[in-house]
Amino acid sequence: MAKFLTSRSEDYSQWYNELVLKAGLAEPSAVRGCMVIRPYGYAIWEKMQQQLDRMFKETGHVNAYFPLLIPKSFFSKEADHVEGFAKECAVVTHYRLMNDPDGKGVVVDPAAKLEEEYVIRPTSETIIWNTYKNWIQSYRDLPILCNQWANVMRWEMRTRMFLRTAEFLWQEGHTAHATREEALEEADRMIKIYAEFAEKWLGIPVVMGTKSASERFAGALETYAIEALMQDGKALQAGTSHFLGQNFARAFDVMFAAQNGEREYVWATSWGVSTRLMGALIMAHSDDNGLVLPPKLAPIQVVIVPIYKSDEALAGITAKVDGIVKKLQAKGISVKYDDRDTQKPGWKFADYELKGVPVRLAIGERDLANGTVEVARRDTLTKETLPLEGIEEYIPALLENIQDTIYKKALDFRNSMITKVDSYEEFKQLLETKGGFFLCHWDGTPETEERIKAETKATIRCIPLDSPEEEGRCMVTGKPSSRRVLIGKAY
Amino acid sequence: MAKFLTSRSEDYSQWYNELVLKAGLAEPSAVRGCMVIRPYGYAIWEKMQQQLDRMFKETGHVNAYFPLLIPKSFFSKEADHVEGFAKECAVVTHYRLMNDPDGKGVVVDPAAKLEEEYVIRPTSETIIWNTYKNWIQSYRDLPILCNQWANVMRWEMRTRMFLRTAEFLWQEGHTAHATREEALEEADRMIKIYAEFAEKWLGIPVVMGTKSASERFAGALETYAIEALMQDGKALQAGTSHFLGQNFARAFDVMFAAQNGEREYVWATSWGVSTRLMGALIMAHSDDNGLVLPPKLAPIQVVIVPIYKSDEALAGITAKVDGIVKKLQAKGISVKYDDRDTQKPGWKFADYELKGVPVRLAIGERDLANGTVEVARRDTLTKETLPLEGIEEYIPALLENIQDTIYKKALDFRNSMITKVDSYEEFKQLLETKGGFFLCHWDGTPETEERIKAETKATIRCIPLDSPEEEGRCMVTGKPSSRRVLIGKAY
Repeated sequence: MAKFLTSRSEDYSQWYNELVLKAGLAEPSAVRGCMVIRPYGYAIWEKMQQQLDRMFKETGHVNAYFPLLIPKSFFSKEADHVEGFAKECAVVTHYRLMNDPDGKGVVVDPAAKLEEEYVIRPTSETIIWNTYKNWIQSYRDLPILCNQWANVMRWEMRTRMFLRTAEFLWQEGHTAHATREEALEEADRMIKIYAEFAEKWLGIPVVMGTKSASERFAGALETYAIEALMQDGKALQAGTSHFLGQNFARAFDVMFAAQNGEREYVWATSWGVSTRLMGALIMAHSDDNGLVLPPKLAPIQVVIVPIYKSDEALAGITAKVDGIVKKLQAKGISVKYDDRDTQKPGWKFADYELKGVPVRLAIGERDLANGTVEVARRDTLTKETLPLEGIEEYIPALLENIQDTIYKKALDFRNSMITKVDSYEEFKQLLETKGGFFLCHWDGTPETEERIKAETKATIRCIPLDSPEEEGRCMVTGKPSSRRVLIGKAY
Repeated sequence: MAKFLTSRSEDYSQWYNELVLKAGLAEPSAVRGCMVIRPYGYAIWEKMQQQLDRMFKETGHVNAYFPLLIPKSFFSKEADHVEGFAKECAVVTHYRLMNDPDGKGVVVDPAAKLEEEYVIRPTSETIIWNTYKNWIQSYRDLPILCNQWANVMRWEMRTRMFLRTAEFLWQEGHTAHATREEALEEADRMIKIYAEFAEKWLGIPVVMGTKSASERFAGALETYAIEALMQDGKALQAGTSHFLGQNFARAFDVMFAAQNGEREYVWATSWGVSTRLMGALIMAHSDDNGLVLPPKLAPIQVVIVPIYKSDEALAGITAKVDGIVKKLQAKGISVKYDDRDTQKPGWKFADYELKGVPVRLAIGERDLANGTVEVARRDTLTKETLPLEGIEEYIPALLENIQDTIYKKALDFRNSMITKVDSYEEFKQLLETKGGFFLCHWDGTPETEERIKAETKATIRCIPLDSPEEEGRCMVTGKPSSRRVLIGKAY
């Protein structure tokens, strides 16, 4: 069997890039830092979208759509926000091209210069709060629980497919509330939804926590994040939910008449996950043979490959398989019967391994005679021969088992990679030799945080929500600390 | 009851604008020519998307995602395309803002000028064919049947919500084929899918046909369109499917090794519908009381309003309604029970009429005693009192009936507005007094087409696919013609 991929141990980064390309997930485009999401990659993203959308709607949210472009001046309205977002972004300055007067091609028409430039949204708080101003007069108009599925652009210097691209797809929730408590509850609700989605669907355990002040979203009073661990021991921030206080309401003058008759500023949250989750999914589970997909997100859950020498034998197998396909589909399982005669079974096996199809059934002529089928599972790469009769009962349970096994494996790995350390020297050493997450005492100052980052490239990933109160001393300065924080090198 | 809307007869255009705003479908934004699609409008668009996506997938298509930005030079590669699209579009020239050195706010950083400008996609043929070049080597790689759900921008001078906006949402299918015949079949298949969707889901009858050469998509050899008629007698192009020949393959050098070993250029189609369909939906069916939605696209299909004087009475009604809601939901019907005590029943009735909810059930204390319910249908504005018992059997049939009735009403109207004329004088007169579609003989020249447009503002909407061969003479020039074409004033 041909080896498709550089191994993880050889070069993890190279392995990732090759896998994204060769499994047909995405590829670079002619536009700097932007990728093309190929059909197989997009099919996985669609499954993520469907489930997230369901979870958002079950918690009372509705979808809407706001403009792609944002007037430049909007960015100056919220002081922190302009620092965080208005800088590296795509700027629209003109609205027309014209034929080049000097020859071939087209040039920008200098006469078509915009009075005020527009920025392609890097995130939509500003344009949305400018809109909410018209929607909100009284407490009766609250809460507003809107979500948007959209593309956004940030002019990133170093890009990697899915993990950090100039354009990416995401959802951004933007909610408006009458009270601080309600907004805090919403921010908390949404980070928990992200955590549930990560664990139950992506099969990725996450640490939920709050960001340190310097890592907060630009304009937020509190940022909640879920942090996942990749197989190379690096952390990946997989989703964030922000408590924005009244900052955007003040910036865009959004007030409401409260029940007591007072006029007050509206409280806000925003929260989002993006196609970055694709990167997390790929890096958390896959192996040197290719993708490993949790069944709940696999575009093809079961592939059936016939093994035959004659057309007659194929016809016999196909007749049998047709019945199995129907029975599996009736159970809501997505099945593909690959009877192409242009490729050999071995090539197909390797290709579906590369693509991460959770279950492969192979049926040969002898199987047909014996009433058996070979069942291979992608996660463990194990095979067993089972009776064909009743296979449609076995497969759904197997898919559930694979979903659980993938999660447990990731959980065990993640847990084995959380290290409690109390000495900065030990931290620095283990960071290089072992990697992963570290639970350490920190004195809570931005200076110490900055020093850790400058000296080790590790950052405070979050202050875990479930981290218990514990008296201790900052591993760097020795100053008192009351709880441990999660530190690691991040993507 | 307060009158919410200007009537259609008073001012059709004003009626439309008010309806879009007051029914909560969309509103203007701070960005020139761009709208905000509000949650209720977006919920209808989502239903359209879901059904179209299903129809695309059933016919073998897959989704993918291509970059928002297109290098300026790509537009010069296909000669007709640059004329049609590269002109009025949003141009990205810089990638950074900076703090204004002279004071407050932010300005474009002159140092961050792009070497080559990007255009925000007005349509994606160029970037997609530049990508397909990497995907296609041999006939085995064909066909490629990709669709993309995306936002696009065209810098329109005069905009109207949903009908013509600078940014709009759409889907664009882009397919690649080994033969001319296969590509023509695909273009034909997709316009038929659009027609089926328009008739069975939007409830709008359409005329399918080909565009005259001058109305073709920029770069197409043939453009198929579906043309719908609005209540004011104006035509609306609701979807197009283009046979692109080998134009884009030549422009981007996309060749494949055919089965016979020859290298040939790939054949292409593209096809799309957009949020313009929302405009068609609104204008085709709605009345002076508000929206009329076909049940298949209604976010809320059934609303239940309790009519009560005491909390005790409400509790009794609610207990009964809960059972009905569950039974209807079990049948896949979306039901809303509106027991808000902040609004009176009459206000709710008018509001749900404005929002086009197909069926309204009202249950009062007497109904509860009698075991009855008042059933009102939005399309005919009729009411009847029926037994509560078995109402869950009645409603699904009623929804189907409403769907059919809405379509038949639109069909009867449309058919009554197709006029055959043979004299240009009569055409001009009837165009002003009656409006609608006209079936006329045309000599097939762009000059005559242009003259009709210049003198009457009417355009050749399409050459209907089902228009029979018929000897005749052009109504303008008297030159011979072999079949009638469809003419009308268009949105």
